[in-house]
This record gives sequence, structure tokens and C-alpha cells, in this order.
Amino acid sequence: MLKLYYAAGSCALATHIVLEEAGADYSTARIDFAKEQQKSPEFLKINPKGRVPALVTDKGILTETPAMLVYVAQSFPASRLAPTDDPFAFAQVQSFNSYLCSHVHVAHAHRMRGHRWVDADDAHSIAAMRRKVPETVGGAFELIERDMLKGPWVMGDQYTICDPYLFTLAQWLEKDGVDLARIPRVVDHRRRMYERKSVKKAIAEETA
Amino acid sequence: MLKLYYAAGSCALATHIVLEEAGADYSTARIDFAKEQQKSPEFLKINPKGRVPALVTDKGILTETPAMLVYVAQSFPASRLAPTDDPFAFAQVQSFNSYLCSHVHVAHAHRMRGHRWVDADDAHSIAAMRRKVPETVGGAFELIERDMLKGPWVMGDQYTICDPYLFTLAQWLEKDGVDLARIPRVVDHRRRMYERKSVKKAIAEETA
Repeated sequence: MLKLYYAAGSCALATHIVLEEAGADYSTARIDFAKEQQKSPEFLKINPKGRVPALVTDKGILTETPAMLVYVAQSFPASRLAPTDDPFAFAQVQSFNSYLCSHVHVAHAHRMRGHRWVDADDAHSIAAMRRKVPETVGGAFELIERDMLKGPWVMGDQYTICDPYLFTLAQWLEKDGVDLARIPRVVDHRRRMYERKSVKKAIAEETA
Repeated sequence: MLKLYYAAGSCALATHIVLEEAGADYSTARIDFAKEQQKSPEFLKINPKGRVPALVTDKGILTETPAMLVYVAQSFPASRLAPTDDPFAFAQVQSFNSYLCSHVHVAHAHRMRGHRWVDADDAHSIAAMRRKVPETVGGAFELIERDMLKGPWVMGDQYTICDPYLFTLAQWLEKDGVDLARIPRVVDHRRRMYERKSVKKAIAEETA
């Protein structure tokens, strides 16, 4: 059975939703960032990076959201969550998710995790990074709005693993200070995602 | 025919090597960062993100290295560059490449591209980011050394798309100020990669 380690409000939500939509048999374990459980010796044995998500499988432990999303989709092909047999269509899915992890999530992380990239006591630089987030995250979402979100789903008519991942990062838009009026299609996508049973169930569990 | 847009010294080298190793019929086009060609109207039509690499295919244009690497591997299955039919093995490949793009490359980018995350005239913060790079990039490579590089290749006996990607980012170790003595296995991997005909050819073209 699969076991997902997650933290409330983290990008693990994307994999949580996809596990639900794939009909997977899985359990979850919550890691409390406030107690720094992600840095505990027990958790570092699961993920030496000290981050969530991590997915325990019968064959070993997986980390990194884009990899985990494809793994779940490919393990449950009937769910049709990723076009893994069509190289170009699959590359478009991967390109979108790669942009989310390496650009959008990274831009967002400069709001609360600036200490990753400067000394932790450098208040000036950490504040400077935080101030820039509305512009960097906003700019990335405007690109998604204009050039990447085909509609109604990210890849067009077919719902894929891109949708829960976009939805997950879009959860942070207000706190990131992004002007929602500039990204109406992203906001509408987020609203439609909230209506899905899988999304409601995953969020209910993570916020219980 | 495939066409790769690259810049010298950029992460496009990974895809360039993989195109070579796959035996693909491809051409290349150099983008000059010194002339800011990546922000020209012509190039923004190819990649609205204003970044390299970009891969023009018969079906459309792809961006984001992890997606492009899998695309080439999957389009040339005889090259056996990615285990796309084995969900767990493939997820390990994807997890490794995702770590490179979202963590290692991002840490590196704070040395020269700090203006992405703070105001461009904030010299204090940009210098603070630059000073931290030996620690952040070094820490990531130490994790790769200890927990991720199976040897002799990243995924063990089978050479995959992870190898040229790791090699490409390892090109920057000296300028990033990383202590090579702490990552002997990564350095040995880099040395063995330099010996490959495909690597020599790609580098020769990019530095001509």
C-alpha cells in the first residue's frame, strides 16, 4: 500500500488529490512543520532532504512532486491522468509541471523560506525577497494564464496531473500578494477544482 | 527535424548531449545571453519565458529540461536512455532530474541571477545570495554524493538521462565555490562523462 507523508498547506496536496483521483489504496502521515518534524532523525530516514512530500511504495520511497504525480498516474492507467504513451503530449504535461516546481514554487518559497538562499540573520535580504514575491509569482501566473492554461483544464479537454498541481500552488495566491484580477482563468480553474470530490476529500483530511 | 535553442554554458547542454546519444537528427541555434537575445521578440515567440533551452519539434515547441530529456529518450527508445515502461524506475529518474531543476539549478542561479528574486538595484541582497551559493550548491551535491548517485552512473549500471543532466550542472561547481574534495564520486562521474564522444561533440559545438 502507498503511504503519503505530507504537511498541511504544502505542495503534497497535489499528490494527495491525484492518489484520490486514481482510486489508489493509500494512507497518509502528517508532518508538523511547526514542530520541525521534517528535520527529525525518523523523517530524515524517509527523506534525507527533510522535505515533504514523500511517497512510500512497495519498491522504495519516492520524492519530488513531478515524479510522484507521474508515478501515480502511470501505476493507475485506467485513471488516464497522464498521456505517458504519447511522447509529445506527455512532454507538454511534464513541461508544465516542471515549470511549477522549478519556477512558480521557487518564486513562492522566497516569501517564507528566504533563509534557504541567504544567511538566516540577514533581515534586510529576507525582507527584500519577501517584497518581490507578488511580482515574481504574479508574473509566473500571468504567463500561465496567457500561454499555458489551455482550458477548461491545463492541457485542454483532458484533465491531467497538471490540474491538481496548478490548483495546489494557486492555493497560495492571496498570501503571495498576487492580483487575482489579472489571472481570471487561473482563478476560475481553482474554483472548478474546489468542486471536485477528490479535492474536497484531500483538503478535509489535511485540515482536520 | 528537431532544433535545439541553447546558450553556451547553460543547462541546454544536457539536452544537447542526449540528442547526440539518442542518434537524433537535429540542428542547433545559439542564443547569445550577452546580447540578451533570449529577450528578443523573435525568441519570445519561440519561448515566452525568455529562457533556454527550447526544442522545436514537428508537433510544437517544448521547454523545461526534465520534459525535453524524457521526450528525446521516449522518441528514441532504442537508445534506452529512460526506463519509461517501469513506473518505479522511471519515477526515480524523474525524481533525480526534478531535484536538479528545482533545487540544484535554483541554488546555483542565486550566484548570477539574484535579481530574479529581489530588486535589481539591491546590491546588499544580491551579494548576500551570491555568498551563500557555495553552501547551498555544495550541500545539494553532498546529498547527491551520499544518497542519490548509485554508481557508476546515477541510476546504477544503466546510463540514463540523469547522467548528462548531473554532468551539466557539475560544470559549474568551481565557479559556484563548491569544495570538490567533499564530492569525489560526483567529480569522478564528471570525469567519465567528459570521455564520452557525445559529450565531447556537444561541448565542442557549443564552445566553437
